[in-house]
Amino acid sequence: MLVVHVHVRVKPDDLEAFLTETRRNAAGSLEEPGVRRFDVLQTEADPAHVVLNEVYVDQAAADAHKRTAHYARWRDAVAPMMAEPRAATRFESVFPAESGW
Amino acid sequence: MLVVHVHVRVKPDDLEAFLTETRRNAAGSLEEPGVRRFDVLQTEADPAHVVLNEVYVDQAAADAHKRTAHYARWRDAVAPMMAEPRAATRFESVFPAESGW
Repeated sequence: MLVVHVHVRVKPDDLEAFLTETRRNAAGSLEEPGVRRFDVLQTEADPAHVVLNEVYVDQAAADAHKRTAHYARWRDAVAPMMAEPRAATRFESVFPAESGW
Repeated sequence: MLVVHVHVRVKPDDLEAFLTETRRNAAGSLEEPGVRRFDVLQTEADPAHVVLNEVYVDQAAADAHKRTAHYARWRDAVAPMMAEPRAATRFESVFPAESGW
């Protein structure tokens, strides 16, 4: 399982609009066959620091996500709302086992 | 929903032992009534950087976790395996809704 944490620093005035677009993208992503989770998390100490917890069955699923209409809409809509370029960290899942996701 | 990401830098020689103890703690934690997820993630670029994705229904559930036997065992077993003190970041969940966890 491939897990990606995407860190976004949002311009404070755009935070509500960003969260609305991001909820929509997350809901669409969960309909993809290769997506197991797409959580949207807001840092307690800095609500403008949002983290996406994306879980894909494999790299092909992550690539397929980038070809969806909901991803393209999100990418274009939120680009001007970011205070700096977003950063992603990739992980391998150790627990749960593959069947537990 | 309260989400906590715990970042651990593990001493490379202790990595397998750390992952064994951490899998055991994660499995025990999932038996707690207030724990929704307890994922163990290994950074692709640095496998000795391990992140726990802990999801609690509320602060009381997070507090209760710290009083369990599996947590106490894990804390004591892995303390000497850490290359530096672990660091935690707390999040509020934006998506999914409460019922989606």
